[in-house]
Order: sequence, then C-alpha cells, then structure tokens
Amino acid sequence: MLSQLDAAQLRRQRTTVESFPAAGTRAVRVAGGRELIDFSSNDYLGLARHPGLAAAMGECAARTGAGSGASHLVTGHGSEHALLEEELAAFTGRERALLFSTGYMANLAVMTVLAGRRERVLLDRLCHASLLDGARLSGAAFRRFAHADSSAASELAAADPGHTALIATDGVFSMDGDLAPLPQLARIARAHDAWLVVDDAHGLGVLGATGGGALEVCGVKPEDAPVLVGTLGKAFGSYGAFVAGSATLIELLIQKARTYIYTTALPQPVAAVTRQALKLAQSESWRRERVLALTARFRRAAAAAGVVLSGSTTPIQPIVLGSAATALAAQRSLAEAGFWVVAIRPPTVPQGAARLRITLSAAHAEAEVDELVACLARACADAARGAA
Amino acid sequence: MLSQLDAAQLRRQRTTVESFPAAGTRAVRVAGGRELIDFSSNDYLGLARHPGLAAAMGECAARTGAGSGASHLVTGHGSEHALLEEELAAFTGRERALLFSTGYMANLAVMTVLAGRRERVLLDRLCHASLLDGARLSGAAFRRFAHADSSAASELAAADPGHTALIATDGVFSMDGDLAPLPQLARIARAHDAWLVVDDAHGLGVLGATGGGALEVCGVKPEDAPVLVGTLGKAFGSYGAFVAGSATLIELLIQKARTYIYTTALPQPVAAVTRQALKLAQSESWRRERVLALTARFRRAAAAAGVVLSGSTTPIQPIVLGSAATALAAQRSLAEAGFWVVAIRPPTVPQGAARLRITLSAAHAEAEVDELVACLARACADAARGAA
Repeated sequence: MLSQLDAAQLRRQRTTVESFPAAGTRAVRVAGGRELIDFSSNDYLGLARHPGLAAAMGECAARTGAGSGASHLVTGHGSEHALLEEELAAFTGRERALLFSTGYMANLAVMTVLAGRRERVLLDRLCHASLLDGARLSGAAFRRFAHADSSAASELAAADPGHTALIATDGVFSMDGDLAPLPQLARIARAHDAWLVVDDAHGLGVLGATGGGALEVCGVKPEDAPVLVGTLGKAFGSYGAFVAGSATLIELLIQKARTYIYTTALPQPVAAVTRQALKLAQSESWRRERVLALTARFRRAAAAAGVVLSGSTTPIQPIVLGSAATALAAQRSLAEAGFWVVAIRPPTVPQGAARLRITLSAAHAEAEVDELVACLARACADAARGAA
Repeated sequence: MLSQLDAAQLRRQRTTVESFPAAGTRAVRVAGGRELIDFSSNDYLGLARHPGLAAAMGECAARTGAGSGASHLVTGHGSEHALLEEELAAFTGRERALLFSTGYMANLAVMTVLAGRRERVLLDRLCHASLLDGARLSGAAFRRFAHADSSAASELAAADPGHTALIATDGVFSMDGDLAPLPQLARIARAHDAWLVVDDAHGLGVLGATGGGALEVCGVKPEDAPVLVGTLGKAFGSYGAFVAGSATLIELLIQKARTYIYTTALPQPVAAVTRQALKLAQSESWRRERVLALTARFRRAAAAAGVVLSGSTTPIQPIVLGSAATALAAQRSLAEAGFWVVAIRPPTVPQGAARLRITLSAAHAEAEVDELVACLARACADAARGAA
C-alpha cells in the first residue's frame, strides 16, 4: 500500500513545527531549522497564537485543572463550558448551543440523531468527510448532489418525496473556499420538511458583518437553517466544536448523540480560550476586515501575475494544478522561497484536481502576500513545465 | 421523546461544576452552591487538577499559542505532539504511537482502517460505543460475543474461518470495571490471523507494575495485542487519545484514517499537559498503589456493610441496583450526604442493570471512602425499599 502511494506521489507526510520565531505572525520554524511563512493554516483571524488566548488558558488551568476528568453527563461539565455554550448561542442567534470535542464528532452526532434507517439524506458531493461518515453511520440511505448545485439537490428531493430527513452542506467548502447555495437549499429543505444542516467550520468568525459566517453573508435566517455546526479550531484559534439551534434540538442531542454522551468533556481551559477568542473576534472587527482585504489583495496580484484562480472570495484560495506531482513540485518550490503552502491531493480532492490550498490570515503582512504571489507565479509555471 | 424519557426516569441531566474548593482533592462545588466529593470521575491517579499539569499548560500556551490552527498533515503538527508520540510509544513498549483528538475518533480510525466490507469483526457485547460505531462505519459484518466470554468469541471465529479481520474489546470495561480475557482473546486472534484491538482507556496508567494497564496485568505482550488504544483524559488527567503499535500500523493510520486526516490537531498545550502527566504517572508510582489500596479498602468496608459488590478489583466499582428509579434515588440520597455518585442507566448499561458507578481516585482521602461506604449502605437499602 505504502509503495503504491509513493509511486503515485500520494503519500501523506507530516512536517513538525519546532517553534514560532516571531509573535503575532504566521512564521514557523520547522524540523531541520528552516523558517517558513505558514500560508496553509486555518488561523484566519490570527488568533491561534494570540497572547490573550494563551493567558486565558493558563489562568483557567490554574483555577480548574488541565483536565475535565469525565464526560459532560457524569461530572465533567464545568462553568467554563456552560458559559461558552451561552455565549455561542448568543453569537449565533440561537436558543442554545452544545459543545463537542471536534467538528467530526458534532457532525456524527447531528447526522445519526436526525436521520435514521428508512430515511434519506442529501449531501453536497464536496462536503466534509465527517458529514459523509455521519450519513453512513446513521443507517439512512444517502445521495450526494453535484457540488453547490441546488437544482440537483431539488431534483433528488423531488424524486422521492416524503423521505428526505435532512440536507447537509458545508457553508464554506474547505478545499475550494466557495459558498454553498444556502438560500436555495433552505427553500428546498423547507419545501420537503427536512432539516438543513450547515457545517460552517470555515465561514464562522470570518464572513458577514458580525462574523456570523456563510449564513449571515447569504442572508439566511436561523429559522431557515435550523442546525448550525461550527468549529472552534479555525477562525477562533482554539479547539473543539459546537452545534447551535433550538432548545429542542440541543436537548435531543444531549439525550441521544453517542459522540456527545460517551466521551470526555473538553478541558475547561480550552473552553476559556474559546471564550476569549469569541470576545476578540467580536470586538476586533478589523481582523475580519483585514483577512478579507488581504484575500482581495492576493487575488488582484495573482490574477495580474497570470496565476489561475478559482472563484473563491474567502480566505481559502485554491490553485488547482492537476496532478499530484505538479502540486507537490509547486509546494517544494514555494518552500525553497520560504513559504509553507501545502499540496492537497486525492482522495482529499477529486482525481486530477490536486492543488495548492493557500489560506490568508489576519496575521499575514501585506509584503508577505505580495512576495508569495511573486513566487507562486514562478512555482506554478515551473511545476507545470516539470510535469509536462 | 423527552416526556417518555422523563416517565421512564431515563432523561439525562447535566450538573455544572462551578469551582473546586480544595486543591489536591476531589471536592467540587456544583451549581446551587453545594459542595460534594466527586466519586464518579475517571481521574484515577488524581492528576486532572495537579498544579504541575496546569503549569505545563500555561507555559506551553505562552510558547506555542493556544491552538494548533490546522490538521497534523497540513501545518498543525508541533514538537509537543511529536515528543508525546515518542514518549507514548516508549511507555507502551511499541514502535510508534499516534495522537488522536478523542478515544472515539481513535476507535473509529482503527476499525475503519483495519476492517472492510466482506470482512467480519467480533466485539465484546459491553465494549465502548465507539468500537461499535467504528464497526458499523467500517462496513464489515460484525458480531458481538457474550461479555468477557472468550469461548463465545472462539466459537464465532471458528464458525466462519478466514473472515475475521479483527477482535475488539475494552481492556477494563468502563461501566463494570472488570478485565477482558486478554490472554485467551490474543490466542484466538492469533489462531485466526486477526488483529486484536484493545481499548484500554480505563486500565492504562492504573494497572500493572509500571502502569502498563490491562495488558501488563494479564501478561500479554505487545506482539500479541498489536493494536492498543489509550485515552489521555482519564488516569492521565489530560485530554485526547492515541493508538500504539507497529510502525506499519501507525503509517497505515496516517495514510488512511479519516478521523486522523480530516480534523484539527490537539492544541500543543494539551500535549504538553499529557507529557507532564506521563512523567508523574511513571515517577510517582504511589498514585497507582494508592488508588488500588483505596479500592481494596472500599471493597472491604462495603462488603462488611452488606453492599452487594461486583467482582471488579479496579477503581471502577459498580453497585448494580436494577431499575433506573432505584439508581436515581440512591444517587439523590448520596448527594444529600455530600457525595457525587452518578447513576448510570440504560441504554448506557443493559435494561434492568441500572447502577451507581463509583470510581476511586488517588486524590480521595481514606476518611472520605469510609464515609461514602457508611452512606452507601443506607442509600442502597432506602432506594430499594422506595422502589419496592
């Protein structure tokens, strides 16, 4: 298996971050001593290494200990969890929110609780792995519709009326950066009396006037997207995830979701970090404005330099290069120039759609973005020539 | 649904821990202001609130930031993760170890990567929910054998020779505290060329001369139990989980496990906490000795007081009371007396086997254990009378 992966240039490699040489930046020193500017993390608002978050973690750990010691339903539910849940509910404009260990576990919970055998779920073809695994685990029949294609979703729902329990989609797609057609999907879900599940891992905190994410930017109201999944390890620079929705939905998850019930609660200091991040994300709106301005700057410069961009206007900017070999060559060439941009290959993305996934962060400097673009045009051209 | 749960006394309730009034103890103040001694957490070694762990968390957060910002295979893998993996491999006597977000996700990974369609997996009937969900998600056929019954497992394996991909079991069962018949299961797995997967969430760090867990106490060598899953939020007082095994197994998981690939890496400060806990668990062997001595003390006193015990000799001591109503009444009565012992009801445990799940910790005082037993005998008798 491993030699096959090697031959196809599909073997996954880990690179260890040894240290962070400059506070307030995305500079990292990796194993071997090289210093690179990280253009592949999901730290969109530049909060992951914010000293205020680190301080909140240390302060809370001294007060509550570093571990929660049990599941939420036994003795592991602390006041930091409770306060964070209230704050997440307020932030998302929902009655309640429920903390989960990871977005993966939140999506498994939602799918298995809201869909069952003899029902059907519809998924966007490019939705996150965890929504697909949740659909599998639910025992429901599932069908995937063409990416971001609400007509295809509508046809699937109409083909088997009365059986669609839910429609699930990412808000912002993780490898493409584009938005789901949320107003249209909300209408289809309502017409078929199905739940609309939106995993906005990459939109929350970044998009919308108040950082409300893909739903806010698309003008979809909470009542039209009743199940919102958010993650806390991306824009919020922390860790964990949540589901937000009606009081009834959350109570249903508490009673039934195996990935909620049978797992240890997050450490309270991690919840304290997220509380601090949520405050900063709301009070420092310049972070959202800055990452979107840097994104626009990147796109203008890249287009001018002849780099082929996707239509994404979010901080996720894929440069689709085709073969795994080409994408890896471009990654290596950018690393030589001091930039850490990770090649994303099948099966994470479709065959023939290997790419560089560039992400912008409020912690990047304008000059870093400009220099990246200069190197990127050369790297892509060289990689394509090498592959030809 | 909720009213049905209420009527059957099966509704799950969360109680919020507000604060910790006394360092180095299992005393908690819960919402409403009551102070209770927690006898239901999995903090077996008394490390969850150890100041050294809290200090390690704060120190690391200041150095690395509070969030990792990406998955391990993109830019989220840091030196604290790498060092912890090496230390966990050394601790468990395996070639390599791989960190996971939760035990749930580790078990999903192991099951889906090692078993596939057209194969079969065998599970102990009382194994953790995540092993069962992993079996479901793998697409393999699965059969459950009678709890801790190696003859039943052997018969199932023999009934369909050549198709058993793996046999999975808890090392110490979470709700019963008893040990799996590991030497026998290892022999069966070897005879059928199947993987033996042991989730030793509740044994590692507690049992065995070096804290090596259920495998060590049963004398089963790593080569006879090639897949070890451990969790870090129980005896180690931290958060997360790992799989330990051969270098080939770990590489296979890195390449194939969706719950490893498509999720944000744990914060490095959480890994730093675990590294500190692993050091303390190894250097302070009195913690293991103490929790087992308190367990023996509890059992002696409870037996003398007429409490019906299970055969468990681990820090998990179930008091099976039968109906959900009886178990809840006993929980309430103990809370009145100042003890937090959580009633565990179906579907977490089988119908008619609702129980109090008492857990001992090295952080408990002898006097607390003695007083708990005194109250327990009364609480169980009163609850049984009330239910009759």
